[in-house]
Amino acid sequence: MSSNVNEQMLTLGTQRSVIRELFEYGKKRAAVIGEENVFDFSIGNPSVPSPDSVNAAVAKLLSTMDPILLHGYTSAQGDAEARKRIADSLNRRFHKNYSKDTLYLTAGAAAALCCCLNGLCNPSDEVIIFAPYFPEYIVFTKGAQAKPVIIPADTQNFQIDFDALKSALNPMVKAVILNSPNNPSGAVYSESTVKRLAELLDAKSKEYGHPIYLISDEPYREIVFSDTIVPFLPDHYRNTLICYSWSKSLSLPGERLGYVLVPDTVEDCDLVYAAIAGAGRSLGYVNAPSLFQRVCAACADETSELRVYETNKNLLLKELRRMGYHVVEPGGTFYMFPRALMEDDVAFAERAKAHDLLIVPGSGFGCPGHVRISYCVPTERIEKSLSAFEALAKECLA
Amino acid sequence: MSSNVNEQMLTLGTQRSVIRELFEYGKKRAAVIGEENVFDFSIGNPSVPSPDSVNAAVAKLLSTMDPILLHGYTSAQGDAEARKRIADSLNRRFHKNYSKDTLYLTAGAAAALCCCLNGLCNPSDEVIIFAPYFPEYIVFTKGAQAKPVIIPADTQNFQIDFDALKSALNPMVKAVILNSPNNPSGAVYSESTVKRLAELLDAKSKEYGHPIYLISDEPYREIVFSDTIVPFLPDHYRNTLICYSWSKSLSLPGERLGYVLVPDTVEDCDLVYAAIAGAGRSLGYVNAPSLFQRVCAACADETSELRVYETNKNLLLKELRRMGYHVVEPGGTFYMFPRALMEDDVAFAERAKAHDLLIVPGSGFGCPGHVRISYCVPTERIEKSLSAFEALAKECLA
Repeated sequence: MSSNVNEQMLTLGTQRSVIRELFEYGKKRAAVIGEENVFDFSIGNPSVPSPDSVNAAVAKLLSTMDPILLHGYTSAQGDAEARKRIADSLNRRFHKNYSKDTLYLTAGAAAALCCCLNGLCNPSDEVIIFAPYFPEYIVFTKGAQAKPVIIPADTQNFQIDFDALKSALNPMVKAVILNSPNNPSGAVYSESTVKRLAELLDAKSKEYGHPIYLISDEPYREIVFSDTIVPFLPDHYRNTLICYSWSKSLSLPGERLGYVLVPDTVEDCDLVYAAIAGAGRSLGYVNAPSLFQRVCAACADETSELRVYETNKNLLLKELRRMGYHVVEPGGTFYMFPRALMEDDVAFAERAKAHDLLIVPGSGFGCPGHVRISYCVPTERIEKSLSAFEALAKECLA
Repeated sequence: MSSNVNEQMLTLGTQRSVIRELFEYGKKRAAVIGEENVFDFSIGNPSVPSPDSVNAAVAKLLSTMDPILLHGYTSAQGDAEARKRIADSLNRRFHKNYSKDTLYLTAGAAAALCCCLNGLCNPSDEVIIFAPYFPEYIVFTKGAQAKPVIIPADTQNFQIDFDALKSALNPMVKAVILNSPNNPSGAVYSESTVKRLAELLDAKSKEYGHPIYLISDEPYREIVFSDTIVPFLPDHYRNTLICYSWSKSLSLPGERLGYVLVPDTVEDCDLVYAAIAGAGRSLGYVNAPSLFQRVCAACADETSELRVYETNKNLLLKELRRMGYHVVEPGGTFYMFPRALMEDDVAFAERAKAHDLLIVPGSGFGCPGHVRISYCVPTERIEKSLSAFEALAKECLA
């Protein structure tokens, strides 16, 4: 008998993500040669602990709150008080006046994106994605029965190739996914990039007679270097939906907590919010994890000690450039995206693996010829890895 | 401009679930007349706290485990050690020999069901659902692009109407969802029901040349009254997938923790498991909440103090029958499903609302003429509500 499961899901479940594959390989390799000898730059798992206030908030909630309420269902969009505290934090930081009802709490940014895409898209709608991109955007877009349309990378600056974008826009485009600070390039879209994008989308929305939504995936918003400024997109484009996660800023990737913000400037914001909530229901989310709704709300003004990522960036950037790597300087995140030193980035990443350097080929991010380095590791690990990077460079540049 | 969101999601997000609507109404009403005066029998939120071992496990994990690991990503299928402990618990209780790799941890049973349905079904596949049913089964099935096929209720015993099932079976049927102990009826499918179902599905699987999967939704497995026995379905039917949640047994519905068990007896179990994992990825789940993966694993042999539900069942059953209600005695859960005392169960539930009795019309469960009472409330609340039930009965039976 043939099992006849869904082939698309089987493929997703069999291939898994390149990043997670490397991560699993790293764990196995660590068991053999010791964790300190594997230079695992594969996954975006924060290397700094959550601030103490996170565990303190957990302890306080456990000791003061009725466990039936604390661990019970919340409203599907999230506990009202938690949403209020999160909205207040946003209002303080971005000078807004958002009500709690602009927020829909989710099980992380991945869930937030899936709720937006499933809520907005009809079959045959198109979703624009800029290379280099987080590969799950393709998975989530197809999961929403929509068609991903890739805009090739601007490999000079990792901003936007507007000519390519213009030729891709058409009336079937329902949404554009933006990710700044960007995974994998570390680039932050400048204010001029954002303004130009907003103007173009405004004009095209009018021309097509329906809004093109800007879905802004912002888990790295708080990880920004020196004087880089991340423009707050709703200030520039009214039909912006923000997908956020505390995975990186509070070092809680496993706990799955984030939100969709539907600003009241969004056209038909009530309908859009309702469609997102409907998608959450259809996808089986019920409510975001209840304890961590309150924990993240209590810690919404805080972050982990994020400075190490800038230290790592500076060290790695300087050393890699010295060794002959070509790297666009990241404005934030804990990623950089140097050019591979071989034509084939997959072969290059394989060669790096022989030095126990786990880096991710750019092809998986829609940008061949590059590799992603996740430097969310202790700084000593980076120091220790430099000889491996150097040996790799010598091998390839010889 | 027309926003043109996905209409199906908009409808889901606008109508929301009848149960959650009542729940929200109850919260608002409680703010007006006091919580103790609202007889909210609408939602399946456990009324007993988690066992102390849950909070103790949280505290221990926070104080002993590296926070970066504790709150970090786990493998997509769940932390290996947590899965091992959960498998061990199942093996002890059901005399099995399941490995950790039969388990895929999920954000609750809703996520587990969505992963199974999306992983198994191809468009135009059919999924059989027995009335009365948890209404989200329809939502989840449609969300997986499959077609729900409802088998009308056996209102005499809330077992299975096999004649109706036989006429519904056809080669497009990919799966059958079973929910025993049952929400909303409280019925437990007897061993003879299960055997008969297994024989029929075995025969039809052979006839059609592909397995019909039995998706067993078992969040109420541990809530069973007196000497009722819940047959362990994989002992009777090899192609059984179990969807479990700790929502009810450990009183953790808000935390979203459960699993899919893919027994190694399932045909092509590796492919089935991979398709389920692929679906989890496509739906944006990433991993089940990491802290509670370990908490539930540590407490997998335990339950909350569940006896109050049987106390409540006994009290309510005796009193409602005395007042003239017709009720099939539940074998488990914290629900009962009496006949409405008016022809129109929606009108009857509305009339109950005037007595501040919040009960859910059976129509929403595909079984008009009945109402669901969730007696997961303090026993005193039930005692206090009896006069309201009596007044309602007098009004209707006059």
